[in-house]
Amino acid sequence: MSKLIGNLIFGQSGGPTSVINASAAGVFTEALKNDCIPKVYGAAYGIRGILEEKFYDMTMEDPKELELLKTTPSSALGSVRYKLADPDVDDTDYRRILEVFKKYDIRYFFYNGGNDSMDTCNKISKFMQKAGYECRVMGVPKTIDNDLYGTDHCPGYASAAKYVATSTMEVYHDARVYDTPMVCVLEVMGRNGGWLTAATALAAYKGAGPDLIYLPELVFDMDKFIEDSKRIYEKNNHKLIVAVSEGVKDKNGKYISEYASDLALTKDSFGHAQLGGTGAVLADVLKRELGCKTRAIEFSLLQRCAAHWASKTDVEEAFTAGQKAVQYAVEGTTDHMVAYERSEKNGKYFCNYVLVNLSDVANTEKKIPREWITPDGTGLTQDFIDYALPLIEGESSPPIVDGLPRFAKLKKVLATK
Amino acid sequence: MSKLIGNLIFGQSGGPTSVINASAAGVFTEALKNDCIPKVYGAAYGIRGILEEKFYDMTMEDPKELELLKTTPSSALGSVRYKLADPDVDDTDYRRILEVFKKYDIRYFFYNGGNDSMDTCNKISKFMQKAGYECRVMGVPKTIDNDLYGTDHCPGYASAAKYVATSTMEVYHDARVYDTPMVCVLEVMGRNGGWLTAATALAAYKGAGPDLIYLPELVFDMDKFIEDSKRIYEKNNHKLIVAVSEGVKDKNGKYISEYASDLALTKDSFGHAQLGGTGAVLADVLKRELGCKTRAIEFSLLQRCAAHWASKTDVEEAFTAGQKAVQYAVEGTTDHMVAYERSEKNGKYFCNYVLVNLSDVANTEKKIPREWITPDGTGLTQDFIDYALPLIEGESSPPIVDGLPRFAKLKKVLATK
Repeated sequence: MSKLIGNLIFGQSGGPTSVINASAAGVFTEALKNDCIPKVYGAAYGIRGILEEKFYDMTMEDPKELELLKTTPSSALGSVRYKLADPDVDDTDYRRILEVFKKYDIRYFFYNGGNDSMDTCNKISKFMQKAGYECRVMGVPKTIDNDLYGTDHCPGYASAAKYVATSTMEVYHDARVYDTPMVCVLEVMGRNGGWLTAATALAAYKGAGPDLIYLPELVFDMDKFIEDSKRIYEKNNHKLIVAVSEGVKDKNGKYISEYASDLALTKDSFGHAQLGGTGAVLADVLKRELGCKTRAIEFSLLQRCAAHWASKTDVEEAFTAGQKAVQYAVEGTTDHMVAYERSEKNGKYFCNYVLVNLSDVANTEKKIPREWITPDGTGLTQDFIDYALPLIEGESSPPIVDGLPRFAKLKKVLATK
Repeated sequence: MSKLIGNLIFGQSGGPTSVINASAAGVFTEALKNDCIPKVYGAAYGIRGILEEKFYDMTMEDPKELELLKTTPSSALGSVRYKLADPDVDDTDYRRILEVFKKYDIRYFFYNGGNDSMDTCNKISKFMQKAGYECRVMGVPKTIDNDLYGTDHCPGYASAAKYVATSTMEVYHDARVYDTPMVCVLEVMGRNGGWLTAATALAAYKGAGPDLIYLPELVFDMDKFIEDSKRIYEKNNHKLIVAVSEGVKDKNGKYISEYASDLALTKDSFGHAQLGGTGAVLADVLKRELGCKTRAIEFSLLQRCAAHWASKTDVEEAFTAGQKAVQYAVEGTTDHMVAYERSEKNGKYFCNYVLVNLSDVANTEKKIPREWITPDGTGLTQDFIDYALPLIEGESSPPIVDGLPRFAKLKKVLATK
């Protein structure tokens, strides 16, 4: 394919992860050394930065700080949740993007995100094609939810999984410290896919994990949950750890977190109404049913930003995914997302960087295969363990100053209009 | 002093930390190589294990596993919250303990814990003296609360502080990812002392911490809190991070967490009643006052068991404290707690291991000096930063297998009765 000379803009979109900036580092360092790309821009707050003509000139950044992005959590450029309209209904945003691309001679547009972001990326790609504007559009995957179609796993997932599994092991030890009843419900992120909650099974595999795991892939049955819990609580000398995805729903499609307002109407035996998210609801139910103190622990934002305990495999792969996106695009690829293909080299896990059509990725969710969930629906099989273990291999943390992480500090010099 | 030959028993008491087992490792490895101490026992669940004659024969353990205790969180022997009666009122437990000590020829009794545990240790020490039974009683300090009298700081504090400060920095980055209003309340452990909550000031010192910090050392004034929050929220482009100790109270001595039931009676503008601990209450108040989505993050058990990100300084000191307790006792000391004395060597922080009378330590709580809290009561001064930074120096984590921690696995062979 022909050599395309022009500027590059990269945007981060959707919920952040520990390694989304590692992909940014990959894109920026690779693009900055490429002759085809005179200017490299970072969009402030994703697609909104492009619409508002607010983007940073990455050539102005200290290369050392760009390198530090590799171990800096969150989205250094700022992220956004912005859904583009169907261009056949309203093409205002698309025309504006085209205008900005022309003005800044953007010939490489890269977007980093999950399902919704790949939909945005796909729509822009198709619009540019239709408009006859030559622009290489590449998706760079990202999501702790691990639910993107066409890739073996997603950048960000492994680091969150490593953190969740490690913290679960630690809580397992801590929670067993007294010779008294102990019931603990761990709430893990994941609205539709249970991949991250499943990572608690890695702790169980190491003998220090939950007794019961509930995923949004299956309908949540409160009666069965109570029955399962009671059985294990009695069998295990009044110890029980449950892990649950925030997104579990009952057979009517009602989120378990929504049970909170029903529970608020009644009081427990201690005379308190205790509410909160999914974990808090289940902890409250178990308090009533088992008649003992229970505790809900929500990993909350911590699980997606714990760069101090990231997977080295994940960080390296996320960085490489960014590099590969640039390399593929410069070589002529457009309208694709970089994806991971699992392979083996000398009997060991190895990752290939392949391409998937953006149209195929957009808005398709990948869930945990039913056969990886135990028949009774409360655990993961060895297939899942074998899938996940290589991904969490190796420890990555930022450089440390005064015993604390040194994260990247960007100058964020706005590109001149 | 005379050489005392006899067996040693060590117990862990109170809430666990990331390094309580490091002190156990120090005691066990030092005692096991000492000729004066033929048998080394570990009490199951602290003082209860002694009362019930349930303790483990530590000579049966694999030395490699004892070494691994150094990086294993929680209390490997099991802990307990058990308050001994005043011996003048009821000496049943004390007589039982004396009986067990005689039966097993226990001449070294070491107890690892915080204020209450040092009280237990002190009472037993005095009883043994009164009974004329020669037994060297030593306290080994421990508490993430950092509130023990007579020691510069407490084993366990620094690791929890390092984790809290690091996680706060990570959350700071994550929470700022969107260009939308963001209000986040971090709830940190500490009923009476704010030492651990103050650790969030280390994150602020690094430019990525809370805007407001509320400690139980000062009366919590809800009106002032709302006023402070509104001011910063407006000034900081609708971004606000608050850190609060779980134990803050209003001027009537009512815990802020107890406000939950009052709030439950009313609904917020979204029609939800949202409850929980101190952080959740404040997040709920701010949601109503600022009219935006707010989030409470509770570090919960995670903050006291995160051995994957412990302070190397803390781990080494906790281990040495255990060793020193054995050395001091063998040399003739009894009725004391090992304490940390801050010193300097070549212009750098250095820790001396000194002795404090158990009577002085028992039940005395050390709080943050008022002059280390900023005049407006919502921050910490440079004095606190200078105090805390050397303590969190260095990173300690357990050996890693398959990308996950390998914690100690004890055989726990019960001593034959």
